[in-house]
Amino acid sequence: MTNNLFENYKLVRQHTAALTASLSAEDCCVQSMPEASPTKWHLAHTTWFFETFVLEAFEPHFAPFNAAFRVLFNSYYNAVGDKHPRPQRGLLTRPALDEVLRYRSDVDARMRTLLAAQPDNAALQQLVELGLHHEQQHQELMLTDIKHLFSRNPLFPAYAAPGRQASDPVVVHWQPFEGGLVQIGYDGGGFCFDNEKPRHSVYLQPFELATRLVSNADYAAFIAAGGYTEPAYWLAEGWDWCKAQGRGHPLYWHWQGNAWHEFTLHGLVPLDHHAPVLHVSYFEAEAYARWAGVRLPTEAEWECAAARLENNKKSASSAYVESASSYYPCSIQASDMGQLLGVAWQWTQSSYAPYPGFHAPVGAVGEYNGKFMVNQYVLRGGSCITPAGHVRISYRNFFPSSACWQFSGIRLARDA
Amino acid sequence: MTNNLFENYKLVRQHTAALTASLSAEDCCVQSMPEASPTKWHLAHTTWFFETFVLEAFEPHFAPFNAAFRVLFNSYYNAVGDKHPRPQRGLLTRPALDEVLRYRSDVDARMRTLLAAQPDNAALQQLVELGLHHEQQHQELMLTDIKHLFSRNPLFPAYAAPGRQASDPVVVHWQPFEGGLVQIGYDGGGFCFDNEKPRHSVYLQPFELATRLVSNADYAAFIAAGGYTEPAYWLAEGWDWCKAQGRGHPLYWHWQGNAWHEFTLHGLVPLDHHAPVLHVSYFEAEAYARWAGVRLPTEAEWECAAARLENNKKSASSAYVESASSYYPCSIQASDMGQLLGVAWQWTQSSYAPYPGFHAPVGAVGEYNGKFMVNQYVLRGGSCITPAGHVRISYRNFFPSSACWQFSGIRLARDA
Amino acid sequence: MTNNLFENYKLVRQHTAALTASLSAEDCCVQSMPEASPTKWHLAHTTWFFETFVLEAFEPHFAPFNAAFRVLFNSYYNAVGDKHPRPQRGLLTRPALDEVLRYRSDVDARMRTLLAAQPDNAALQQLVELGLHHEQQHQELMLTDIKHLFSRNPLFPAYAAPGRQASDPVVVHWQPFEGGLVQIGYDGGGFCFDNEKPRHSVYLQPFELATRLVSNADYAAFIAAGGYTEPAYWLAEGWDWCKAQGRGHPLYWHWQGNAWHEFTLHGLVPLDHHAPVLHVSYFEAEAYARWAGVRLPTEAEWECAAARLENNKKSASSAYVESASSYYPCSIQASDMGQLLGVAWQWTQSSYAPYPGFHAPVGAVGEYNGKFMVNQYVLRGGSCITPAGHVRISYRNFFPSSACWQFSGIRLARDA
Amino acid sequence: MTNNLFENYKLVRQHTAALTASLSAEDCCVQSMPEASPTKWHLAHTTWFFETFVLEAFEPHFAPFNAAFRVLFNSYYNAVGDKHPRPQRGLLTRPALDEVLRYRSDVDARMRTLLAAQPDNAALQQLVELGLHHEQQHQELMLTDIKHLFSRNPLFPAYAAPGRQASDPVVVHWQPFEGGLVQIGYDGGGFCFDNEKPRHSVYLQPFELATRLVSNADYAAFIAAGGYTEPAYWLAEGWDWCKAQGRGHPLYWHWQGNAWHEFTLHGLVPLDHHAPVLHVSYFEAEAYARWAGVRLPTEAEWECAAARLENNKKSASSAYVESASSYYPCSIQASDMGQLLGVAWQWTQSSYAPYPGFHAPVGAVGEYNGKFMVNQYVLRGGSCITPAGHVRISYRNFFPSSACWQFSGIRLARDA
Repeated sequence: MTNNLFENYKLVRQHTAALTASLSAEDCCVQSMPEASPTKWHLAHTTWFFETFVLEAFEPHFAPFNAAFRVLFNSYYNAVGDKHPRPQRGLLTRPALDEVLRYRSDVDARMRTLLAAQPDNAALQQLVELGLHHEQQHQELMLTDIKHLFSRNPLFPAYAAPGRQASDPVVVHWQPFEGGLVQIGYDGGGFCFDNEKPRHSVYLQPFELATRLVSNADYAAFIAAGGYTEPAYWLAEGWDWCKAQGRGHPLYWHWQGNAWHEFTLHGLVPLDHHAPVLHVSYFEAEAYARWAGVRLPTEAEWECAAARLENNKKSASSAYVESASSYYPCSIQASDMGQLLGVAWQWTQSSYAPYPGFHAPVGAVGEYNGKFMVNQYVLRGGSCITPAGHVRISYRNFFPSSACWQFSGIRLARDA
Repeated sequence: MTNNLFENYKLVRQHTAALTASLSAEDCCVQSMPEASPTKWHLAHTTWFFETFVLEAFEPHFAPFNAAFRVLFNSYYNAVGDKHPRPQRGLLTRPALDEVLRYRSDVDARMRTLLAAQPDNAALQQLVELGLHHEQQHQELMLTDIKHLFSRNPLFPAYAAPGRQASDPVVVHWQPFEGGLVQIGYDGGGFCFDNEKPRHSVYLQPFELATRLVSNADYAAFIAAGGYTEPAYWLAEGWDWCKAQGRGHPLYWHWQGNAWHEFTLHGLVPLDHHAPVLHVSYFEAEAYARWAGVRLPTEAEWECAAARLENNKKSASSAYVESASSYYPCSIQASDMGQLLGVAWQWTQSSYAPYPGFHAPVGAVGEYNGKFMVNQYVLRGGSCITPAGHVRISYRNFFPSSACWQFSGIRLARDA
Repeated sequence: MTNNLFENYKLVRQHTAALTASLSAEDCCVQSMPEASPTKWHLAHTTWFFETFVLEAFEPHFAPFNAAFRVLFNSYYNAVGDKHPRPQRGLLTRPALDEVLRYRSDVDARMRTLLAAQPDNAALQQLVELGLHHEQQHQELMLTDIKHLFSRNPLFPAYAAPGRQASDPVVVHWQPFEGGLVQIGYDGGGFCFDNEKPRHSVYLQPFELATRLVSNADYAAFIAAGGYTEPAYWLAEGWDWCKAQGRGHPLYWHWQGNAWHEFTLHGLVPLDHHAPVLHVSYFEAEAYARWAGVRLPTEAEWECAAARLENNKKSASSAYVESASSYYPCSIQASDMGQLLGVAWQWTQSSYAPYPGFHAPVGAVGEYNGKFMVNQYVLRGGSCITPAGHVRISYRNFFPSSACWQFSGIRLARDA
Repeated sequence: MTNNLFENYKLVRQHTAALTASLSAEDCCVQSMPEASPTKWHLAHTTWFFETFVLEAFEPHFAPFNAAFRVLFNSYYNAVGDKHPRPQRGLLTRPALDEVLRYRSDVDARMRTLLAAQPDNAALQQLVELGLHHEQQHQELMLTDIKHLFSRNPLFPAYAAPGRQASDPVVVHWQPFEGGLVQIGYDGGGFCFDNEKPRHSVYLQPFELATRLVSNADYAAFIAAGGYTEPAYWLAEGWDWCKAQGRGHPLYWHWQGNAWHEFTLHGLVPLDHHAPVLHVSYFEAEAYARWAGVRLPTEAEWECAAARLENNKKSASSAYVESASSYYPCSIQASDMGQLLGVAWQWTQSSYAPYPGFHAPVGAVGEYNGKFMVNQYVLRGGSCITPAGHVRISYRNFFPSSACWQFSGIRLARDA
């Protein structure tokens, strides 16, 4: 099993490096806003995670690769000590990208040795697994952050070559669910984050979910109907946000030559009308739903629906694999409940809160999730840039209601 | 019944005026922060509510007292039209306080006529009742806002003469509750706000509530134990708030002559150690609970507990009546579940969200509650300054997690 | 002479009180922006000045009227001790206006006694004279600050009844001056501020001044010609200011019913086209001059011109007396150099700096002028609301380049 | 002469490139604050200057290297069109550094051709000369900006290898000057900026200048004497700045291991006590002078003194040549008026204003200096990192009073 673990370690780590193949050292260094981090910082921080939480704990005669990195690449773990301020991550032209890549190689080599030397250390294995899922989270963030950086450049650089085709239209239906006393939260044998536990009972009223995500064409209709000019559609704080930002369309939309365009990781392209709308904030998602006369699902509704569909046909999990070659949502498959997993993160109306009986682990690792459980909203489902194998129906992503640089879309719900 | 309604109208309106008896025109005019409003504005806005939603709708040959007031005293109803900006409410030295009092008299007289003329108009009566509960909410806000204003004055003016005695210590216990499938939300025959409905089922794990609120002495122990210097006790956003504000104690505490003092509506006085701690933010309440190794209740837990106690002994409702002569929490009564109602608003860990099946009423009145259901936390129980008759166990108060100028305290909970 | 001094004291102090006759306690309490102060604060601070710098220094057995006032009404004198923060002056609903008026009476009575008891104390007399000129400065500030407060009220209250008539057009000429080595600075026997000294030599190139101020009609032509949309007319920082403020006209202009109106102390009235433009910032004055192909005068040019005209005909000083009954610039008199004194403060291109040999007095009074000599521009001439007797050709007023709530206008100059 | 001009062009352009030899592409890309620009941007903008103002005007069949660069690398020339926002210069990871270097080569080649083809075009030559002085200004800014960037990195990278020795102490004297009617402004035959003209008469009182700059040891004594805690030493705005910034020492000083250290382009080193203090704001320079009981010179005093010394002995100009190998002020030479040129920019008390008779050139080049003549203070003398040949006694540098990332120091003056 240790063997398999290191194989998995190698695969994940190599995938991280592969994601940087088209980027220059300059691209990897710059930070475009406080919420986003430079690619180089992601490369270093994910390595810091293994060095600090695994090597420092288990390696005999541990010595850090570079003592200064302990502070420079600590994201938010107060128990580890000082942290370089988040908004200043982009000022670190040194260490150079090459030096960070050496840091990665060094830690990789030591991880190989450590895992070989302690093949039966369950605590070690558990932390390595956490580190790998942590790194997969950062793989997605690397893409959302570089997309944001490139979006701020008037030259609109493309991260990847074009390749996808326009999506076909798909009719939307309402899929009913019975509700009642259901169980949510992870209960499988494999890995999950602490915030997915404990599995527990929730009582749901009967409800219905839309069978596909809101499309760009749907959202354009909202705009055309005065969506951004009529306060009645908005939460009060959402309307204030909208006015303060001067927002009139999703983050990466541009009106050019009398038509909507969209900045993607493949560059600036004409809007794909039948693809799911992306990069909307919670405020926008909620306003769209209100305009449409319906609402967003709760996270319990979403998970209940996803679990039932998983059981019915095990095909859903394969749906999002094929998006691997593109950094844009794949077309909708003919299914009774399309685009549930691996297409776009779906805002729920649930505030991010601890499940009943939740306890954060002891120590620095306990800072992973618990301390963020306030003023954020849960997103479910994974996106087309979420790494394969990192999507679970019990997975709880979370962002503030104003965030829109993630691949976040809209699934509608309504009372039955 | 109309007769009773106008009697009630008169009582509520007179109570509002009575609350201003000790204030000068200057006191009534100034705004101490954007979140707070001048007393004069409260006096006018509550009157505007009746003029706009009742008289304008039902009075034959309606003509406004002053057409400009429609904009000046509109709080946030977009459907009514323009609004004077909230942070500029304190700039309105005109209309003078006397003019606003004339406005109140004028509307009162027209309300009397209207109610007498349409004794069987149920829609009218429903709106009047809403207006009265609205006015009661503003009675409490008038007190919290004037307290904030006076707290910013180095002379620390007293709103009311001193009178209360120091509280006695009370031992705290844990009261167990079984959980299971319970019902929350209003189902009585009288008035409630739209956000208290519909009554619905919620599934609860077994839990325990503390039999009294956290006291000032309890909270002082948290401070002495480094509560404000150790990030491990705090939500990440709470810790940032704490540092950004330079916060080291509750809003109105002052360290003077080697002892804690507290600014109250009775002036600056030595801290009453065994009274409930007040004016803490959600962040502080959550940090205190985390430090104490427990947690805050959910609003469903709180309501479930309150409902059971109400049924067991009907004495609870009388507990908070006697606080009317003081603007400080009364002493704890010997009871198995003290300080539940009418002592201090109790932060719950529940984000303010619509109940399943919630629908906001059509029209401007629909803006009353629904549009604020994001990034706020629910408080329960009412406070010592909540008007008598305005406390309900299904009542949902809500404020942002950083708010601390309300009479907000801490009730602890834990898993059974 | 002491007798005369107290007579003068009485006149000045009574004039201050008289200026508040049309204001309510509410009007006197509110602060409309950090740069402006409430009327009540002006009433108290000018009294504080006499109490702190005169009574405390010379009164036997000095005891303060209210010890707290020493801090509350200290404007900026660090040598006196703590200061209540400037942006919070409007929070002081206590002491009440009545209490501040008692403070004034009390200090007035003690001043009468003191001056009678020490008739030959030159140091005392000098400080009293400074205090009176200080109070006159605040008389003007009271008017500019109440004008700003009323301008923020959508009801546009009038401070005084209307009364003035529209101005007649006056043709503008260029008046030449020879330049050469001239003397500027005060050298008379009476009172002047420390910043007007020492009188010293300055070398000037030949120059010309416009014979009247820029009128509202002139300025409207600048706007109509795209003055606020063409960056070429503006200093870089002025252009940034203009865009950040969304400024498109002078502070108190309003476009209503297809015509320019102006908010004045007499209420909102149609623009008086041939009256001098008022309430422009340095940036706007400089932009206007640049657009007109000329420039603003230096303060030395202005004073040199004013001195020559004073000598030629002693009529100039009487020009501004007649404006006493109005709070708006009087019409232009037929003269070779009209509107020099007592009409509108005239921006010069001179940064506020110490004259060669300037030394601030020792002690707290030394903080009066010297410490403000950075990043401000000098204005000359006095305005229609400057108290009679408070205008001198050597008088140096100063404000930041963005200030426009003073009665500031534009005098053009050009190289000969 | 054209031949000489292109030789000069080549030398200046090569020197710019040489300054980047020790920097990585990452170092060249990042912007550390809105006031500073990335090295890559400096490399491109100086090239843009030649392409836009020279090639576009004079090259037959002009075609831009890259049309997008016209906007991307326009600093502030409104007459040229749109500008990429200054605070976002650091987001341009594309074009890559290599591409910008190709841009430089391309423009250099075209400049060679153009100058060879039009050997007698005086207008062309004049613009090229302006472009070269412009590039020299940016050579200095490249160093101050990279120093600022590196100072924000906790690793404190060194731009250049160490090399300098500690300075020797030098006694300071007061050098008297007579004053009277003097001439300032450029009148030589060579190049000068428009703001140095016209040469004109100024009348000066007798004055004295210190014979050397204020040293680090001098400034440390100011700090030790409570310089940063006593408001009496400060301009009011300076004191506010000081408190708002939490400033207690010059920008790049660090207190480590019980001793002052200084971040330099050679890394973090112990403070060189007898070297001139650097990186002080105008506020700090003024406060130091006030504490020392003297004042800062005016720019006319400074230039008058420098001119007299230049005439007396022509050795001064050679003093600053030898600093070329170091990026730190060279030691003080034994002279009657040391450190006047090429050591540290010296704050004067003169606000940056047009000389009498100043007229900005017509067209975009007229935006070079004139539009910045507000709210800035003049610095004189050049610094140890000012390019050789770019120092003139009539040279007027200017920065806001809060700026301290330039090599700015303090020369004291006093009345005779």
